[in-house]
Amino acid sequence: LDVLVTLANDGYNIYQWTLNEHTGTHMDAPFHFSDQLTADQIPVSDLLGPLAVVDIRAKAEEDPDALVTPDDLQAWEESYGEIPPGAIVAMLSGWDVHVATDKFRNADDDGVMHFPGFGLEAIDFLLKERDVKGIMVDTLSLDNGPSTTFDVHYNWLPANKWGMECVANLGQLPPFGAAVFVGGPKIGGASGGPSRVIALV
Amino acid sequence: LDVLVTLANDGYNIYQWTLNEHTGTHMDAPFHFSDQLTADQIPVSDLLGPLAVVDIRAKAEEDPDALVTPDDLQAWEESYGEIPPGAIVAMLSGWDVHVATDKFRNADDDGVMHFPGFGLEAIDFLLKERDVKGIMVDTLSLDNGPSTTFDVHYNWLPANKWGMECVANLGQLPPFGAAVFVGGPKIGGASGGPSRVIALV
Repeated sequence: LDVLVTLANDGYNIYQWTLNEHTGTHMDAPFHFSDQLTADQIPVSDLLGPLAVVDIRAKAEEDPDALVTPDDLQAWEESYGEIPPGAIVAMLSGWDVHVATDKFRNADDDGVMHFPGFGLEAIDFLLKERDVKGIMVDTLSLDNGPSTTFDVHYNWLPANKWGMECVANLGQLPPFGAAVFVGGPKIGGASGGPSRVIALV
Repeated sequence: LDVLVTLANDGYNIYQWTLNEHTGTHMDAPFHFSDQLTADQIPVSDLLGPLAVVDIRAKAEEDPDALVTPDDLQAWEESYGEIPPGAIVAMLSGWDVHVATDKFRNADDDGVMHFPGFGLEAIDFLLKERDVKGIMVDTLSLDNGPSTTFDVHYNWLPANKWGMECVANLGQLPPFGAAVFVGGPKIGGASGGPSRVIALV
């Protein structure tokens, strides 16, 4: 933040922001990995929906590269019913506890990052078999840390679906029953950007 | 927006934003005109609530400097009941139709702007007699255009209340009955900033 005016000198505070779009809790718009919708073009009706929280904390604790798989989605559906049309699906890996430390990126000696993400098979299932508005992760990326091909980004986003990265506090929500508001940016042409995400239980 | 990488060259699109916090549909945090809460510090429970839309379009059409007065709030309450605790109160002046033209600022030959806003008496009433989380206007400022003293800013915001400026489409909402989600920025230290505001009817 650059200070433009201050309360002491000018009677009020205004800053100027300079930031990369993909900072903090932020949206990946379809345009981030395609020539599809920019963040401001996403229909507002796609920014509200019932939230399905898929808990992979147990396996993420054993394997930092853990993926959300079709089995995880099936296990969720066995407990809570078929993921409803218009839902938003969140990966709860528990990784947000690391957000203030190097463990959030968790780079090894070769610079390869290690954190959980969605797997391509789960994304294929959601694209073909379910009607989901968007996905969320509590890690830095929709793909897991070691990914070099960004399969989730390249399959999910070009289908005019959005993703939300670095989402906090998913562990405070029920697996099903919360509604989520996705305050994605309304900045013309943006490929994504810092977003306010609020769940109602 | 500055282009950092592009789909054609790099396989994905990322821009860098440089913007004044008080741009577009944006929040004024208490810190904007005081040393109170910055945007990120506002409790999330203060960003959701029932919306009271106070329609002053008729008088704003006759007088571009029109103010929301205690009489306007009283007239609203006679129709819809007392403004409930935790409500968010919006001024509907109809001014958002001018957003793409010079009429939005409506500066006269002396550079004095003319558009509607809240009046100090209405703000005093809301602060002392009601329990309201925030206020919204469909104009550039909580104070009306010719204000040089910014009474609304200097009274409302230091009470740890937020304001939202340049809010669009209020005319599509019922006077009472909508719930509004205020996606204010979660940028550390911000005096406000671009916000996604979504109403549910």
